[in-house]
Amino acid sequence: MGDNQDNRKSFLDTVKFDEKGLVPAIVQDHETGKVLMMAWMNRESLQMTFDRKKACYWSRSRKELWLKGESSGNMQDVHEILIDCDGDTLLLKVSQTGGACHVGYHSCFYRKANSDMTMDICDTLMFNPEEVYGKKS
Amino acid sequence: MGDNQDNRKSFLDTVKFDEKGLVPAIVQDHETGKVLMMAWMNRESLQMTFDRKKACYWSRSRKELWLKGESSGNMQDVHEILIDCDGDTLLLKVSQTGGACHVGYHSCFYRKANSDMTMDICDTLMFNPEEVYGKKS
Repeated sequence: MGDNQDNRKSFLDTVKFDEKGLVPAIVQDHETGKVLMMAWMNRESLQMTFDRKKACYWSRSRKELWLKGESSGNMQDVHEILIDCDGDTLLLKVSQTGGACHVGYHSCFYRKANSDMTMDICDTLMFNPEEVYGKKS
Repeated sequence: MGDNQDNRKSFLDTVKFDEKGLVPAIVQDHETGKVLMMAWMNRESLQMTFDRKKACYWSRSRKELWLKGESSGNMQDVHEILIDCDGDTLLLKVSQTGGACHVGYHSCFYRKANSDMTMDICDTLMFNPEEVYGKKS
């Protein structure tokens, strides 16, 4: 009974935003389970993600709402949104168009640590960022 | 060449800890790809995780190093550690003994949002937390 009542609670009211009003969102391919990226959401971007079924984040560097793929075309169709036990982390299961990473890889987690603390590339390059975002002058 | 030189950089020196000295670590089952939890690491817990190949975090609530599974027995054997493009998020691929969640579920992400903003349980209960952690008085 208690559990069932808890489940009826509004999802949005369960999310615990941090002192900056943000919550981290882990983004995972809904078919393969591959983790693609992590980004931050405020309440407005989470609401937009719900409404549009396209992932929308809060860009901490640009300090603005960020509809993922708006400039690159690499959008994320959102299939499921999960929340963790503490209510302070989200998990989005998405279909990713192209690559998730601004460097051009399919996943932002394209580097793996070796036991000697060096790193190796462990992912596939999907696009040339200069072609997608324009060459940095 | 540039890429290759970058890969030879020390993994630990690539991690960008936040203003509190912490970095979020996403934890994923290395065989199924299921996302189990997210926790925070400081430099010391990351070094310990490397050395022991068991996941070790920084508990923000208890303000202490936290060897996952120390009290519950539900440890995480670490197979791989990946880092994202910005160097500010880690991804651990682990074998999870028992359940990852202190509530007793296999994953901390055991609640899924429905389109009407209610939530449903979407995971398996693995243990009774009262038996594992003791009954709260």
